[in-house]
Amino acid sequence: MTRDDLIARVRAGDPRAIARAISLVENETSDAAPLIAALHPHAGRSWLVGLTGPPGAGKSTLVDRLASRWRAQGHRVGIIAVDPTSPFTGGALLGDRVRMQQHAGDRGLFIRSMATRGHLGGLARATGDAAIVLDAAGFERILIETVGVGQDEVDVVRAADVSVVVLVPGTGDEVQALKAGLMEIADVYVINKADRDGADRAAADVEAMLALHPLASGAWRPPVLRTTATSGEGVEALATAIEAFRAQAGALAEARRRERAALRVRDLLIRGFLARLDEAVLHPGEFDALVERVARRDLDPHAAAALVLARALAGR
Amino acid sequence: MTRDDLIARVRAGDPRAIARAISLVENETSDAAPLIAALHPHAGRSWLVGLTGPPGAGKSTLVDRLASRWRAQGHRVGIIAVDPTSPFTGGALLGDRVRMQQHAGDRGLFIRSMATRGHLGGLARATGDAAIVLDAAGFERILIETVGVGQDEVDVVRAADVSVVVLVPGTGDEVQALKAGLMEIADVYVINKADRDGADRAAADVEAMLALHPLASGAWRPPVLRTTATSGEGVEALATAIEAFRAQAGALAEARRRERAALRVRDLLIRGFLARLDEAVLHPGEFDALVERVARRDLDPHAAAALVLARALAGR
Repeated sequence: MTRDDLIARVRAGDPRAIARAISLVENETSDAAPLIAALHPHAGRSWLVGLTGPPGAGKSTLVDRLASRWRAQGHRVGIIAVDPTSPFTGGALLGDRVRMQQHAGDRGLFIRSMATRGHLGGLARATGDAAIVLDAAGFERILIETVGVGQDEVDVVRAADVSVVVLVPGTGDEVQALKAGLMEIADVYVINKADRDGADRAAADVEAMLALHPLASGAWRPPVLRTTATSGEGVEALATAIEAFRAQAGALAEARRRERAALRVRDLLIRGFLARLDEAVLHPGEFDALVERVARRDLDPHAAAALVLARALAGR
Repeated sequence: MTRDDLIARVRAGDPRAIARAISLVENETSDAAPLIAALHPHAGRSWLVGLTGPPGAGKSTLVDRLASRWRAQGHRVGIIAVDPTSPFTGGALLGDRVRMQQHAGDRGLFIRSMATRGHLGGLARATGDAAIVLDAAGFERILIETVGVGQDEVDVVRAADVSVVVLVPGTGDEVQALKAGLMEIADVYVINKADRDGADRAAADVEAMLALHPLASGAWRPPVLRTTATSGEGVEALATAIEAFRAQAGALAEARRRERAALRVRDLLIRGFLARLDEAVLHPGEFDALVERVARRDLDPHAAAALVLARALAGR
């Protein structure tokens, strides 16, 4: 398949072409940049909805429920599930296949697992590119699901058009810690597994923390919803809240799009810089030799970085 | 206090000077790089022990128990507790003061909380610099405690001399997810709250995953220990396992030190590069204007990054 074929087939919504395009961007092949450049002008119509929360909060079930609801309304839905990499299986915890089975044959739904990998914004870059592929392929709702309190995972969700933080009634300390890390990013809070003991308390805790946060007049006040994803209870209210945020938050949505663009450009810039260091600035083995000197305490890390930087930006 | 004074007082173990030095590196003031350059040659004697795990696993109590044990043996102990930033309090969840109270007056123990902040390796840089300060100040055991499955937090612990992953008996799915993300980094596993139901199962799950992982002959096999940090049960076995790993893993320890140095140099290089872009390469507002074009879909993110990179590395 030539690149032009691939682009045409992605835009036509061909699942195999979409899967291939996402693999190209995920693996950072040399085809990734021109592919994204070609698809980017055709993207921009979809809503990107990010969900995050602790492991075991039932995010996948909630995502599947939202997807089914939007499918029933005729929207095409893409799901990107970011799972912690397993070093033993080499892949994501929850394979595509398991989740795909229940939706087999529906071309209006595309599900992709991506493993957390690398660092330095690699996850945000990969999910951002995958969202552009899905967007250009005509998916109107894109759900991105991540686990965790990690900055990289939080960045993914923070840059979405609508951010949903999913919590679960717990023993208090877990909820407390997670709330603190995830509190600032949410447009909508969900207490899932709301049929469990402690749901009232978890919701009250979140409400109490939100009440501490002064809100500009007219600003969006994040609702705290309760869902039981396994039965579907509360999912309609969640979808309504997501749509209400999207309808109301005009200027905020604009700011999010800009933040997302800034994060992506910066991440690509850093990756490009590191690649150019290897290709054009440093001799083979030179970086390792510097690192070795730092490890031996013959050079301090700031001085080593300054040396490389001076070489890279020589003349500036 | 002049820089020379500060360095002399840090090396003499003065708690106020140490706190000040860590604040300088945490806030990335212009004094940070020369300070670390001056302290770096005097560091290199301490053991860096990293602990990570899910929120609520009892890591802080375990760290305090380990610290007390090493204090009783006459070692000086530094603790760096990385807590998720709270957007409401602006600081770390668990303040220094709360934990300091019980050890007030002991100059052989230094406890510092650091908030997770920024991204792109900022946390690894800040904790790495803080560890150099403590090391140069004569602390022989440095415990770094992080929460989470996030890459940035995992990197901090991965780069330690000894990595400990703390799990807690749970409902199965939580443990399952966390294990997958944290499995590859541990030299020692701990099931804390081992008096709870499910401890046997959690330990068996970890053992089963480890058994899947082929081990080179003579390689270290990570033990799976059980502790009840609140009562202190199992803490001595944990300290013994940490010491045994340290004693055995000569080549591995060397590799860890090199990995730590490489991560730090690379992070500093990236930060330096971004700072130089702002100072010397781009005109004021130029980056924002590019981002705006990307947000409007007038330019794709890869092309925007390539434009900036070409300017920065002009002539290479």
